[in-house]
Amino acid sequence: MAMNSLHSLFKAGSVAVVGASTNPEKTGHIILKNIVDGGFSGHLYPINPKAESILDLTCYPDLSAVPTEVDVVVIVIPAKFVPGVMEEAGEKGVKGAVIISGGFSEIGNKDLQEEVVEIARRHGIRVIGPNCQGFNYTPNKLCASWPLVRAAGPIAVISQSGTIGAAIAMLAEDEGIGITGFVALGNRCDVNETDLIDFFCDDPNTKVITLYIEGVKDGPLFMKTIREKAGTKPIVILKPGKTEKGRRAIGSHTNSIAGKDEIFGAVCRQLEITRANDIPELYDYSKALGFLKRPEGNRLLVVTSSGGCGIMATDVAEQGGLSMVALSDQLKLRLTEALPPNCVISNPLDLTGDAPAGRFRDAVEIAAADAGIDCFLLIFGDPIAGACEVVQGLKKKTGKEIMVTYIGGGDIEKEEVLKMHQVGIPVFPTPERAVKALIVLQKKT
Amino acid sequence: MAMNSLHSLFKAGSVAVVGASTNPEKTGHIILKNIVDGGFSGHLYPINPKAESILDLTCYPDLSAVPTEVDVVVIVIPAKFVPGVMEEAGEKGVKGAVIISGGFSEIGNKDLQEEVVEIARRHGIRVIGPNCQGFNYTPNKLCASWPLVRAAGPIAVISQSGTIGAAIAMLAEDEGIGITGFVALGNRCDVNETDLIDFFCDDPNTKVITLYIEGVKDGPLFMKTIREKAGTKPIVILKPGKTEKGRRAIGSHTNSIAGKDEIFGAVCRQLEITRANDIPELYDYSKALGFLKRPEGNRLLVVTSSGGCGIMATDVAEQGGLSMVALSDQLKLRLTEALPPNCVISNPLDLTGDAPAGRFRDAVEIAAADAGIDCFLLIFGDPIAGACEVVQGLKKKTGKEIMVTYIGGGDIEKEEVLKMHQVGIPVFPTPERAVKALIVLQKKT
Repeated sequence: MAMNSLHSLFKAGSVAVVGASTNPEKTGHIILKNIVDGGFSGHLYPINPKAESILDLTCYPDLSAVPTEVDVVVIVIPAKFVPGVMEEAGEKGVKGAVIISGGFSEIGNKDLQEEVVEIARRHGIRVIGPNCQGFNYTPNKLCASWPLVRAAGPIAVISQSGTIGAAIAMLAEDEGIGITGFVALGNRCDVNETDLIDFFCDDPNTKVITLYIEGVKDGPLFMKTIREKAGTKPIVILKPGKTEKGRRAIGSHTNSIAGKDEIFGAVCRQLEITRANDIPELYDYSKALGFLKRPEGNRLLVVTSSGGCGIMATDVAEQGGLSMVALSDQLKLRLTEALPPNCVISNPLDLTGDAPAGRFRDAVEIAAADAGIDCFLLIFGDPIAGACEVVQGLKKKTGKEIMVTYIGGGDIEKEEVLKMHQVGIPVFPTPERAVKALIVLQKKT
Repeated sequence: MAMNSLHSLFKAGSVAVVGASTNPEKTGHIILKNIVDGGFSGHLYPINPKAESILDLTCYPDLSAVPTEVDVVVIVIPAKFVPGVMEEAGEKGVKGAVIISGGFSEIGNKDLQEEVVEIARRHGIRVIGPNCQGFNYTPNKLCASWPLVRAAGPIAVISQSGTIGAAIAMLAEDEGIGITGFVALGNRCDVNETDLIDFFCDDPNTKVITLYIEGVKDGPLFMKTIREKAGTKPIVILKPGKTEKGRRAIGSHTNSIAGKDEIFGAVCRQLEITRANDIPELYDYSKALGFLKRPEGNRLLVVTSSGGCGIMATDVAEQGGLSMVALSDQLKLRLTEALPPNCVISNPLDLTGDAPAGRFRDAVEIAAADAGIDCFLLIFGDPIAGACEVVQGLKKKTGKEIMVTYIGGGDIEKEEVLKMHQVGIPVFPTPERAVKALIVLQKKT
């Protein structure tokens, strides 16, 4: 099968949900509803022989009764009926299937899964799953998954855990950061992480590829694909199994073979994959790599309204190989002239708690003219209105990469953070998390 | 001055805001508004010679004009006028002053600050600040600070950084966890962290004391106080200065002397103080210590609807000295009988993605009867309604400590987490953060 057959899945014009349910608590209802609420503009067909309509959509008893072509079927019926539906799908000319249903190789039913694969191969159907949480592709407003995630953004999430993938997607939704897509791998009977990396590397909407993976399906192909695509898109991976018991639990969960952690670590370094240690890091690094450029060097100036946060940032920066650069005498002089006398003219540059947004603008404009500074971290550590506008202006005017933390600012913080996310400026909730993300950005290829 | 004079500050029955402003953007307005919106039921007097009323409260030109006694003055006027107001306050019989205004020793005006201290001593006034973000004490619904935090809970926050203290308080507010109090130390001309630790150790509303501190004011007294109060309340501290540049920045910020980090680490171990490495840890550990008991041992069973999250938890638990205990044959048998065949009967115990809340109840009730398990981590990794009710029931029935993570559950997650926080069950947003908090709880005295 040609790789680009994944396009028919993600860019489907017509979708049928086999096992669509009238019961709002059932997965077969929730997925149909999420496709509707997500704003999918193609044809959508609930397949249910016992219902006339669900969510005001006409039901059809089976795929053959659907009046138009069907590109993708989402299957949410008991495992034993799946082969029959796959045959029907093949006859209908379906190009992609997403099998949500469990009850295949994960509980030992390997024969049933192989039967499905054989049918899919024979008809040229690409399959996501089985035993998975579906997929979501925001450029096509197609949320064939749960929970509902609508915010479009630069992050493509691929996950061997439905929950961890959904958690990253929900963070991106709640923060207004957005995703290109979310694909739950499930049992990976056909589509695997390598196919998806290949697809998202070529997808212009995607700026960063985010993986939770317990074990790679085909190691050599995985490495070859990433090498070939090297430099096109940054990749962030969270892979557990650092302990013996963790590796054993992986065996029970996805039957993946989790090799020694050190070996995977070496592969990541060789392929320039960013490795996250936990779920917050996976999200933070994706946010940074999805929106920001690599700074020209490691010389950082921290500009803050909170002295304490400036110190927290300093410790993490110094420990992580960034340089909290000393200010030149000339720069000190210029800043002293421009800023109120209570400011601390140093690095961190403490604008103090009464700093309005404009004071950040003044300080960064002056400092950006200095050749000795490569990047900035701005810490808004109080309710400071107008922060978004100032950061937008500074990014344009200085051309330098600017990291932003907003903290301790109550309702004004919430407004300003949302504004920044809407214009593509990622904001990190604490200075430590911002600096750690900057350290990762520093290594971006 | 006797220590219990802090009671008159926190439990004030009448408060005057000197420098109350009609301009909603000024601190002198925001604090007055927060005291009103916080629900303070005592007398509240805005002092402003130019206004008739602010927020429907009658203004007075000065303290002497106030018709009743005044327990506490909140001072938000330029530094040079502060000594005069302190003299007035002394004559009025005021017992506590919170000086928000900056412009004292932090910019070199040591004499002015000493003048204030001398007046305070002469009149027996306890002083918080100057140059601080005020204080909040929820048992008295007195939010003489910003942002507005109303949720009452077990955490007392003491901070040398207004922003970091406010950030912890805001997290507690947003999550419905709540605080007993928040005190911004500012220049610590009188009230310091040791006085406050002493007060909150005796305060029945407080279950955990949470500090951000750059340097301790009086080391020997600090150690003596904590030793005397040893075991009454757990203390969590975030103290930066792990790098040379971090320590230098501390010197600029609060003039604190940040000794070698290793020495402070040794002091913490000796005094059984929990040390946090960053702001999220400071909050998580406070949440755990504020609500949960120390488990009887380190043998953990992870019960999860998400295989991936169970593995993440396993790695962190094993690395942190918890024991992911193997299930006894008898327990395996009982669980196999009670649970659907797709569950993975192991540790982590994977109830799989279709698990309703009741399946968690069944599993934990059976496992809790086994002598080999000391504590549980329940990971709700999907939208699972009724989780709160199940956890409440299990805590009562089993008597064992139960940690909870809720993740990837969309709107249902948000509802259930809020419910749990309202009934005093802390929920951690990722399995790693829950396990790290459990490791800290393990060491609780």
